[in-house]
Amino acid sequence: MKKDDCIFCKLANGVIPTNMIYEDDDFAVIMDADPVSRGHALIIPKEHADNLWELPEETASKLIPLAKKIGSRMKDVLSFDGFNILQNNGETAGQSVFHFHMHLIPRYEGAANNDKLLRFASAGLSPEEIKGIGDSLN
Amino acid sequence: MKKDDCIFCKLANGVIPTNMIYEDDDFAVIMDADPVSRGHALIIPKEHADNLWELPEETASKLIPLAKKIGSRMKDVLSFDGFNILQNNGETAGQSVFHFHMHLIPRYEGAANNDKLLRFASAGLSPEEIKGIGDSLN
Repeated sequence: MKKDDCIFCKLANGVIPTNMIYEDDDFAVIMDADPVSRGHALIIPKEHADNLWELPEETASKLIPLAKKIGSRMKDVLSFDGFNILQNNGETAGQSVFHFHMHLIPRYEGAANNDKLLRFASAGLSPEEIKGIGDSLN
Repeated sequence: MKKDDCIFCKLANGVIPTNMIYEDDDFAVIMDADPVSRGHALIIPKEHADNLWELPEETASKLIPLAKKIGSRMKDVLSFDGFNILQNNGETAGQSVFHFHMHLIPRYEGAANNDKLLRFASAGLSPEEIKGIGDSLN
């Protein structure tokens, strides 16, 4: 199903033209409109799902193989040094368009924004706290 | 195949004990030893692959369905507000252990490190540059 008011439904299904680099029955891959690196792209399912929790199993199973396929092409063409796959769910996690998408982010040694991009920041949890959380998930 | 000198081969296959929250024939899911949030976990394939480029197709296809399954359990137990999936390839992309792994990162409103964690930083590319890169990938 497509949602009438969803920009990614429109972009993935060709209703609004965009820089599309790949398309099949299930997905479109488009260039991010405000890229964090040369080649930053988005895998977008053609069928609407708000996020991971709404994504059908079959669609989910095709994502990483597709990320690898597109990433391999980028590796050949763009000669990047590293590659991130990022998928955000919920505003707190940085999701700003509420149609599931997966970021493909080529990385380059010496890029000006490298020290600001996708950095980790420790939560400062103790080994005992980590074990407790792990036990609660078992 | 397992690599003798690989810490993640040892953790995923129970050679070194760790906080494991899930295991099947292909994968272990363990708590990150220096978590960026409560519940930060790693999906690790039991068979060694340095990174995405070495990962077999069949293993790749199981990753997002598994991330959804584990994430759903975390959602119930930890009541998080958001959820990131992150997978890094190459030192430039932040990979520090060279055995493929996928980060599962629950996010919480008001967490002290939210403004330092996985932030985006624009590369400042023009629409023409973005189109040119897109064309080169078609």
